[in-house]
Amino acid sequence: MSDKIYRVNMSNLSYTIEDVPAKWMGLGGRGLTSTIVSEEVDPECHPLGPNNKLVFAPGLLSGTTAANSGRTSVGAKSPLTGGIKESNSGGTSAGIMAKLGVKALIIEGIPEDDNTFYHVHVTKNEVLIEPVPELVGKQNFEVLDEMLNRYNKKVAVMTIGTPGEMRMSIANISVKDPQGKFRSLGRGGLGAVMGSKKIKCITIDAENYKEVHYADPEKFKEASKVFTKSLKENPISGEGLPAFGTNVLVNIINEAGGLPSHNFRSGNSDNAEEICGETMAENIKERGGKTTHGCHAGCVIQCSQVYNDKEGHYLTSGFEYEMIWAFGANLGIKDLDMIAKIDALMDDIGVDAIETGVTLGLAADTDIIEFGDGERAYELLKYEVAKGTPLGRIVGSGTGNLGKIYGLVRVPVVKNQAIPAYEPRAVKGQGVTYATTPMGADHTAGYAVATNILNSGGYIDPLKKDGQLELSRNLQIATAAVDSTGMCIFVAFPALDDPKCLPALIDMINARFGINLTADDVTNLGENIIKIEREFNKKAGLTSSSDRLPEFMKYEPLPPHNTVWDFTDEELDSVWGYLDDK
Amino acid sequence: MSDKIYRVNMSNLSYTIEDVPAKWMGLGGRGLTSTIVSEEVDPECHPLGPNNKLVFAPGLLSGTTAANSGRTSVGAKSPLTGGIKESNSGGTSAGIMAKLGVKALIIEGIPEDDNTFYHVHVTKNEVLIEPVPELVGKQNFEVLDEMLNRYNKKVAVMTIGTPGEMRMSIANISVKDPQGKFRSLGRGGLGAVMGSKKIKCITIDAENYKEVHYADPEKFKEASKVFTKSLKENPISGEGLPAFGTNVLVNIINEAGGLPSHNFRSGNSDNAEEICGETMAENIKERGGKTTHGCHAGCVIQCSQVYNDKEGHYLTSGFEYEMIWAFGANLGIKDLDMIAKIDALMDDIGVDAIETGVTLGLAADTDIIEFGDGERAYELLKYEVAKGTPLGRIVGSGTGNLGKIYGLVRVPVVKNQAIPAYEPRAVKGQGVTYATTPMGADHTAGYAVATNILNSGGYIDPLKKDGQLELSRNLQIATAAVDSTGMCIFVAFPALDDPKCLPALIDMINARFGINLTADDVTNLGENIIKIEREFNKKAGLTSSSDRLPEFMKYEPLPPHNTVWDFTDEELDSVWGYLDDK
Repeated sequence: MSDKIYRVNMSNLSYTIEDVPAKWMGLGGRGLTSTIVSEEVDPECHPLGPNNKLVFAPGLLSGTTAANSGRTSVGAKSPLTGGIKESNSGGTSAGIMAKLGVKALIIEGIPEDDNTFYHVHVTKNEVLIEPVPELVGKQNFEVLDEMLNRYNKKVAVMTIGTPGEMRMSIANISVKDPQGKFRSLGRGGLGAVMGSKKIKCITIDAENYKEVHYADPEKFKEASKVFTKSLKENPISGEGLPAFGTNVLVNIINEAGGLPSHNFRSGNSDNAEEICGETMAENIKERGGKTTHGCHAGCVIQCSQVYNDKEGHYLTSGFEYEMIWAFGANLGIKDLDMIAKIDALMDDIGVDAIETGVTLGLAADTDIIEFGDGERAYELLKYEVAKGTPLGRIVGSGTGNLGKIYGLVRVPVVKNQAIPAYEPRAVKGQGVTYATTPMGADHTAGYAVATNILNSGGYIDPLKKDGQLELSRNLQIATAAVDSTGMCIFVAFPALDDPKCLPALIDMINARFGINLTADDVTNLGENIIKIEREFNKKAGLTSSSDRLPEFMKYEPLPPHNTVWDFTDEELDSVWGYLDDK
Repeated sequence: MSDKIYRVNMSNLSYTIEDVPAKWMGLGGRGLTSTIVSEEVDPECHPLGPNNKLVFAPGLLSGTTAANSGRTSVGAKSPLTGGIKESNSGGTSAGIMAKLGVKALIIEGIPEDDNTFYHVHVTKNEVLIEPVPELVGKQNFEVLDEMLNRYNKKVAVMTIGTPGEMRMSIANISVKDPQGKFRSLGRGGLGAVMGSKKIKCITIDAENYKEVHYADPEKFKEASKVFTKSLKENPISGEGLPAFGTNVLVNIINEAGGLPSHNFRSGNSDNAEEICGETMAENIKERGGKTTHGCHAGCVIQCSQVYNDKEGHYLTSGFEYEMIWAFGANLGIKDLDMIAKIDALMDDIGVDAIETGVTLGLAADTDIIEFGDGERAYELLKYEVAKGTPLGRIVGSGTGNLGKIYGLVRVPVVKNQAIPAYEPRAVKGQGVTYATTPMGADHTAGYAVATNILNSGGYIDPLKKDGQLELSRNLQIATAAVDSTGMCIFVAFPALDDPKCLPALIDMINARFGINLTADDVTNLGENIIKIEREFNKKAGLTSSSDRLPEFMKYEPLPPHNTVWDFTDEELDSVWGYLDDK
């Protein structure tokens, strides 16, 4: 009945089902994946070689009735950043893993035979590892259909498309959501790691699972109510996000002058009106579709949507701000329907929206594509990236690598990972997070936009340096803890503003496991996660000079505020200096 | 009459001619370029951005009558390794710079206008910086012809081909030699740095120079005689190299099981007989050409050659072991004439033989090319790399980057720079040099092959670890000093075996400048150069984990000896640990 560690060795196609070591017992999600990677992976190993490991773990509260607890974490040494990576996603896998008692799934080794791909099926008592030559070269939706034919329709599916098979750094791992569409374990090229292990898809049995056990069901129910209420009453998680989706941010960030446009040349986009959340919501109202939609069971924020074309036919879902920004503002495509079409294609082939979009934005500084050319972007992905042509390989290798191949200087990456949809020169707290998180440029690692722009958790002027280092540090610590619970990042808004929210979250964890965590324990957990991630990175060869934004942001002022990135090296190093000495 | 620093600022197309600061007075070659880069370049800058600098310097003895003193050094932050780089080459530039009184030429900044390339002409009293739209897209020999039309035929010319214009990491800087052919400032992608500064070619006036001044001409002449005798009487520099060229090494290294073949899968090549120095010498005898040939005035080793085709027409010159190994053994091309044809093409387009050859060897693990296909290799370079097609950009980005783009694991690089023609698993002292030199994999940085295979400076078993760390350390220190004199690396053989050689070299420096260097001073100079290079690298983000060979060499035994790379991290870190703490 207790949780187990499921360990698959692809070198000899064997598996073990192990008891959970005591030291891992209180960990979940990012806390668990980063701990396992840190303990078991040689930081100097090749990320696509036999000594890297791919670790999946549901959050501590996944599988429970807690709202918004359905995130699965995946960890490994990243082929994109060369450091440790945790990426998390909605979808159905977290809940099913938790209910089946899968504390973590660890994939090790690489098969001797390089010509075969495998399907890994995890059930309560065994793991089946079978060659699937018939699925090689297929994309995500076709693989999903095949899995739904084979198993109970609720089966959890995690799969890679051809870019993952070809070990491209933009490849993600796609996770089936409750509607049979995909969510993404997006960042850091972990789809390439899955491809290197010759695994085409992983399924988790959904027939024989049980509801999770609560040490104190009554207390859990009580805390859960408070938590849900807090989520629903917050103006952002309760109103803004449900009404317009994450894409509500286009107008807000554009108005703040922080919407990176034309490969990070301005903080304003000419296209904001065509691509903003309000336009999207209007289209959905006219054409049918859904403005509110959850990525996993139990979501009360419902920031996702179903987006139809002009004829009312389904185009895509999970049509997020980052995607729309990357293609609409940074690559300059005006047509929201074209962006939706690209989004659907990317869900099918399995590539990270941010890394891919920013790579194409950078490619618009070369002869590969022109700004605004949506057809060309679509064709590049469908006929070059998905097929693995030389040009497709270049785009598929991500922003930093494309920059190297074309000898470019204005390359928006940190630790070789593409910078997301908030311009660090205009949203400086967010820039501190990009620079100093162990993950490489990642907006979710410490979402300072909340306090810089959205007045959540107070207000700190986004154009000034004052207070940003501390803001980012505190958010990063809290986020590392939240990433361990299986909660989605948007619980940050009520957590920052409603004093009842975080205690309720902690009460749920305590009631689930019969323990007595305090708020300090949670802070310590977050801090400790970052500490072990930084230690891994240091051994892997990342240094303080990896905790920097691209040099061009220091000497190129960003319109409309004409600000530059002006944090000194010493200031940036002070974010975690105390922790490294601990 | 005294030497000057010539400083060119490409941002505003200006120049200054400055007195040599006292601290740089006793430096030349690598010692000077590494010092200037270390003092003036921000280690965190983008190597292709406005804050990198490209520094040319002749050696301390360049321009004198000392044998083999004609090497020019060039330094910068490398776009390939991300660390400091010094590359040196024969040709006529060192002598002419020295005689003109150019202690160093420093190129800074980047022009605002990205569409123009410039020609920089250095004379005694001024520097001309002129746009040369007519030379854009031209290759080296055409640029050279144009310069020889404009100036005295002795003019020194340093130029880049189209790969350099396109800022590819395999691009070198080509230096005119006495015969009007090219030598290469090959490694580390410094041709890309020259391209980033929008300089198509640099010429040094050869009309108004004077013979260099000797503080003690008699003492110099005396020491010079001893030194030359030592070079001529050594069996390697006096017999083996003149008779068969550097390519004498193919059979020797193949026999030792250390000739990397088929992308570092074996230490033996099937093709050794077809491509070895003995075959080459026979061809030259039959077809005409020259077996002995110097790359700069005053060379007494004459390891170079002129190689003709079957009809007796000129094919190429400077046809070196590394080139022949990379294409003949590692890429597996059997036809020496085909390799010569590729060599001539590479001289023309200006790409590094080692980086390019090893990249194509790695590419043979993909669908880009098959092992042994010389025609395809030629076409890839002529129609893809030189034209900058996507595939050409991939090959042009070098071994490490191609590995990333194709998600490969068996990638033979250190610090992202391709490993040269001695297998570290079978020539372990050389492996220590590859791992620990600040330069990235570089055989010339500490040529342990001498003592591991050639019985020069004693003998240390190449397959065992004993003694290799110390051997490599001592050679690296001596080499850093020798690289500062303008001497070619092959003076190492007599220096290791003849007790009169090194004192004579030091006497020449003393007699030239009227100083009193001791052998200890020279050791200190070498050690100090490595120290500042390592400090630069550390600030640039390279760490001890950069001082490692590729992981696959640790678990993949190399035939025929079936040895693996078995130095521990601690052993490798001990090479320079004492120096970092100094």
